[in-house]
Amino acid sequence: MNVHGKHYRTIWVDPQRPEVVQVIDQRLLPFEFKILDLTTVAEFAYAIKEMVVRGAGLIGATAAYGMYCAALTAPHYSREAFLAAIRADGDRLIATRPTAINLAWAVERQWTAMQTSNDIEEMIQIAFTTAQQIADEDADFCRRIGEHGVSLIEAISQRKGGETVNVLTHCNAGWLAFVDYGSATAPIYAAHDRGLKVHVWVDETRPRNQGARLTAWELGQHGIDHHVIVDNAGGHLMQHGMVDLVIVGSDRTTYTGDVANKIGTYLKALAAHDNNVPFYAALPSSTFDWQMRDGVREIPIEQRNPAEVTIMSGLHNGDVLDVQITPPDSSVGNYGFDVTPARLVTGLITERGICAANEHDVLTLYPEKKA
Amino acid sequence: MNVHGKHYRTIWVDPQRPEVVQVIDQRLLPFEFKILDLTTVAEFAYAIKEMVVRGAGLIGATAAYGMYCAALTAPHYSREAFLAAIRADGDRLIATRPTAINLAWAVERQWTAMQTSNDIEEMIQIAFTTAQQIADEDADFCRRIGEHGVSLIEAISQRKGGETVNVLTHCNAGWLAFVDYGSATAPIYAAHDRGLKVHVWVDETRPRNQGARLTAWELGQHGIDHHVIVDNAGGHLMQHGMVDLVIVGSDRTTYTGDVANKIGTYLKALAAHDNNVPFYAALPSSTFDWQMRDGVREIPIEQRNPAEVTIMSGLHNGDVLDVQITPPDSSVGNYGFDVTPARLVTGLITERGICAANEHDVLTLYPEKKA
Repeated sequence: MNVHGKHYRTIWVDPQRPEVVQVIDQRLLPFEFKILDLTTVAEFAYAIKEMVVRGAGLIGATAAYGMYCAALTAPHYSREAFLAAIRADGDRLIATRPTAINLAWAVERQWTAMQTSNDIEEMIQIAFTTAQQIADEDADFCRRIGEHGVSLIEAISQRKGGETVNVLTHCNAGWLAFVDYGSATAPIYAAHDRGLKVHVWVDETRPRNQGARLTAWELGQHGIDHHVIVDNAGGHLMQHGMVDLVIVGSDRTTYTGDVANKIGTYLKALAAHDNNVPFYAALPSSTFDWQMRDGVREIPIEQRNPAEVTIMSGLHNGDVLDVQITPPDSSVGNYGFDVTPARLVTGLITERGICAANEHDVLTLYPEKKA
Repeated sequence: MNVHGKHYRTIWVDPQRPEVVQVIDQRLLPFEFKILDLTTVAEFAYAIKEMVVRGAGLIGATAAYGMYCAALTAPHYSREAFLAAIRADGDRLIATRPTAINLAWAVERQWTAMQTSNDIEEMIQIAFTTAQQIADEDADFCRRIGEHGVSLIEAISQRKGGETVNVLTHCNAGWLAFVDYGSATAPIYAAHDRGLKVHVWVDETRPRNQGARLTAWELGQHGIDHHVIVDNAGGHLMQHGMVDLVIVGSDRTTYTGDVANKIGTYLKALAAHDNNVPFYAALPSSTFDWQMRDGVREIPIEQRNPAEVTIMSGLHNGDVLDVQITPPDSSVGNYGFDVTPARLVTGLITERGICAANEHDVLTLYPEKKA
């Protein structure tokens, strides 16, 4: 999508320097737009671990390009030494965020692909091509989510006689979390590009404020009309007819339709249900968990660093500073995600189309997953 | 309640200097505990307008003491001049926060009381006595809310065999918002004082963070076990049996049981309903609106300053600083309150007892309000 009027992905190879991969330093957004060069596996590992890059799709693509970097920098004097270095680098990348499914998946896909050749130069070329493929596939899946999801916005727009369609979203399931387009945002960008009037209510998404910091910024850069709201506001807006559609992303969705996503998503789903507002989760199929039946009971919810709640960072006289916002003696609870039960989910928007959030309809769309 | 182990109200006359009223500067909490002297009507007006003091009960008491200050400082050479000054001061106090119902009510009660005398010294004494009465009544109503509400906590404690009862609250309906005890917190303090094990989940309550700044602080000072959580977390906690009871305050409650309170309350009520967690609003009867039938449609919801959303204040190296937390170009929506429909409210805790949130039961408790 666009930044300062120019098209960007979230990760790319520098056209002038094919050994250099570039990413946007997302830690600095929305206050500073800075591009980082990644030229060593250590830099890739740092970028993933320290959340220079974040989001399932982008983490996978970064790991894939990290393996390309590993191939460039591994010793070239023997196939064994080369592969040993690649394997060690791959394990190092996987260890940066052990719970990110796409990370291991991208590393192993590269590992398998490279081993199909006996020629080191060819293996480097394979690593490059595979990284590009993984990034392209991620962008393409998101684009297709947008193509399917835009039909929902179009239908509402028609029903409203062309008036603005108000979409509420939570957290950042935007292009910054993927290689391009995003999942929850893809239908919004598609609607905008088709000339439909669309406006987004952006939940700030405490504690890490990915909505206020990332979603608001990326929508603004692409010229999408939006308002940042506190996470408390969505219920009131829905009660008063100010939300036509909710679209969120997902960190894991059971094949029965339970949606794990950033903490607070469940509360918005309840409000949508109470006010007859359609509530959709948009996700590439890699997000499905094909084993788990009961998301609310079974999906483990990580407790995260209390500092995410007690410390807020923002701009003060041109510098980004941290301030403490709770009493020093108060304890803090910090749960990262919640699970929205399928009964509250109107539907799932995937790269293959839209389906109802239940086992039958999910497996109809993905018949190869039937046991 | 206690601060640093010593009992305080939120407003009092200095025992050594009977012409000086003292309040806690709530703008500085939880980072600094500072007591301010109020000795002129201008200082009282400033304290209310700039939210040195806030909360329905405390605003009323402050206005009442402000009228005592007006009586002390008005010209004493004639009854007419005295009353003219008092009236002007009263209007000045009322103008500071025009929507605060208790403010005008306290000023007019003082105005009526003072006019029963022809003697200026006696009128000053009446103003003092009336201010003390208003403060005492506020504290007494809250104490009675606590006496009634504690039965709910006791019943849960018994059912759990004496295990800790987990209460979730939103915003600050604590003793800082009243003269003492608070409304939503009164049953919690009463339970603690009776030796029941109680733990409080404190919603931070964006955008102004009254939960994180005020409720957490006052609970901590009184020794009540608590955790601060982001507003997004309550649904997850309720899904997992970690909340036994929700108690919130109210800014206005219709006689039909619809509860207007800080934005986000409705979302917690939805989650409580979805998980069979009892949801109560605690309120002195002055909070009832005896005219309005449909709170969701009729209660006007103020839109407040966007800076409450875009700017966060907190402690940095010992100083309280403001930081900007949203992209400079993003628009912001800031709705102050929402309305929880009566169907989601298990009951109302008032100074006369607990009743169901419906017209019949409210009017049974307040029969003098029947048309």
